[in-house]
Amino acid sequence: MSLKLEFKVRDYECDLQGIVNNAVYQNYLEHARHEYLHSKGVDFAELSRQGVDLVVVRAELDYKKPLTSGDAFHTETSFRLVDRVRFAFDQRIVRSDGVLCLQAVIIATAMNARGRPSIPPGLIDQLTAGE
Amino acid sequence: MSLKLEFKVRDYECDLQGIVNNAVYQNYLEHARHEYLHSKGVDFAELSRQGVDLVVVRAELDYKKPLTSGDAFHTETSFRLVDRVRFAFDQRIVRSDGVLCLQAVIIATAMNARGRPSIPPGLIDQLTAGE
Amino acid sequence: MSLKLEFKVRDYECDLQGIVNNAVYQNYLEHARHEYLHSKGVDFAELSRQGVDLVVVRAELDYKKPLTSGDAFHTETSFRLVDRVRFAFDQRIVRSDGVLCLQAVIIATAMNARGRPSIPPGLIDQLTAGE
Amino acid sequence: MSLKLEFKVRDYECDLQGIVNNAVYQNYLEHARHEYLHSKGVDFAELSRQGVDLVVVRAELDYKKPLTSGDAFHTETSFRLVDRVRFAFDQRIVRSDGVLCLQAVIIATAMNARGRPSIPPGLIDQLTAGE
Repeated sequence: MSLKLEFKVRDYECDLQGIVNNAVYQNYLEHARHEYLHSKGVDFAELSRQGVDLVVVRAELDYKKPLTSGDAFHTETSFRLVDRVRFAFDQRIVRSDGVLCLQAVIIATAMNARGRPSIPPGLIDQLTAGE
Repeated sequence: MSLKLEFKVRDYECDLQGIVNNAVYQNYLEHARHEYLHSKGVDFAELSRQGVDLVVVRAELDYKKPLTSGDAFHTETSFRLVDRVRFAFDQRIVRSDGVLCLQAVIIATAMNARGRPSIPPGLIDQLTAGE
Repeated sequence: MSLKLEFKVRDYECDLQGIVNNAVYQNYLEHARHEYLHSKGVDFAELSRQGVDLVVVRAELDYKKPLTSGDAFHTETSFRLVDRVRFAFDQRIVRSDGVLCLQAVIIATAMNARGRPSIPPGLIDQLTAGE
Repeated sequence: MSLKLEFKVRDYECDLQGIVNNAVYQNYLEHARHEYLHSKGVDFAELSRQGVDLVVVRAELDYKKPLTSGDAFHTETSFRLVDRVRFAFDQRIVRSDGVLCLQAVIIATAMNARGRPSIPPGLIDQLTAGE
């Protein structure tokens, strides 16, 4: 299942080149991942308060076309398990006219309160429910 | 040649997990690359005003250890040519106690005013001078 | 006339206190002002490309209640003329349960290509049309 | 006593007008305030972990001259008590050639774990020590 989320570029996200700054795409992708989690009943902020921090361990971002002031776009986010302690989000940013602007693979894990990779039992079941 | 640049985490860069937000590392890396360019006599903003936009086409980021409030760190940035239209920056973020926090490869190109990849003659010579 | 715009807090906008960072409210307000301009047929980015920069000269922000992860809210933005070269936006940020979170007055002007305050003829008419 | 802190504009802080975005000045000012606190032995992040959140209740910002790519500047930050539950920071941003770019008054308070304004005993003494 892929979650689709609608966005619109905000002018403060554009830099002196007049296009959305590279780092801002990671903001979009993070928000899309947290909404994905939320759609599965997982609350990122609540998990953090409980001592479980979901953290990114690797990001691969292919920038295809820049977004600019006024652009509407959507993100597509899907989830898969990589191994016992890592999972991945495959994400795309697509402009409203269908042009692919960015493609990304984000590898993440969960850290417990002692800073060790450790995915809480049940979390993966929750994230893959209904697939 | 690798350019070293000193930084200190600012509290607004930390998110609700109490650590530097993923996207902020791209801010650090961008600033480090622009300072690298500057050390070679290349001004990113001035190039943009002249219609030459240096743009990132791919970013690979390996997050090793999170930075947090109060941390001092430095970036290391080196440059290499990939092919006729692409160049790469190899970058690292190292905490003041020597711990590697992030490792990245950033592939970039130059776009001319018509949006075509095209590296201005002389730019590569300038960026590799003194190596 | 007051323009209402819907938002949702994104987790990367929260800082280590677990609430939306102070500076981010200015991002929300700026986006709301640019959407106000847009609703009047004025494009902030296009104006800038033409050499007319709308700039803030004073901001007064009263922080009433913090927004936090997951909050939905809206902005209210209205416009008034202050004098020959200055105009103001009265803005509010209201959480979805009706709680006032922030109240602001933003005083702005237009700068011409020579950096002088100068509102282009017609701009004020456009911004107050239909009032 | 006024604390002076050196900065340099980073290109990602500039927006499509080619100047530092309005909201970013609040980032600079916040970092300067936290460094002021630190110079007095007060750690903003540590206080937050202990359930004491220093929060801004009002910000007045006068934008005098925009900072742009490449600019070096410093902040000046001083502290004063306003009343039993509020204190103020008077702050300035001055470009390296002496030009005043921004002047601000930031009114803040401390919130306890129950969300009530309440300045911990000793904090004010600490912040005004050595004046």
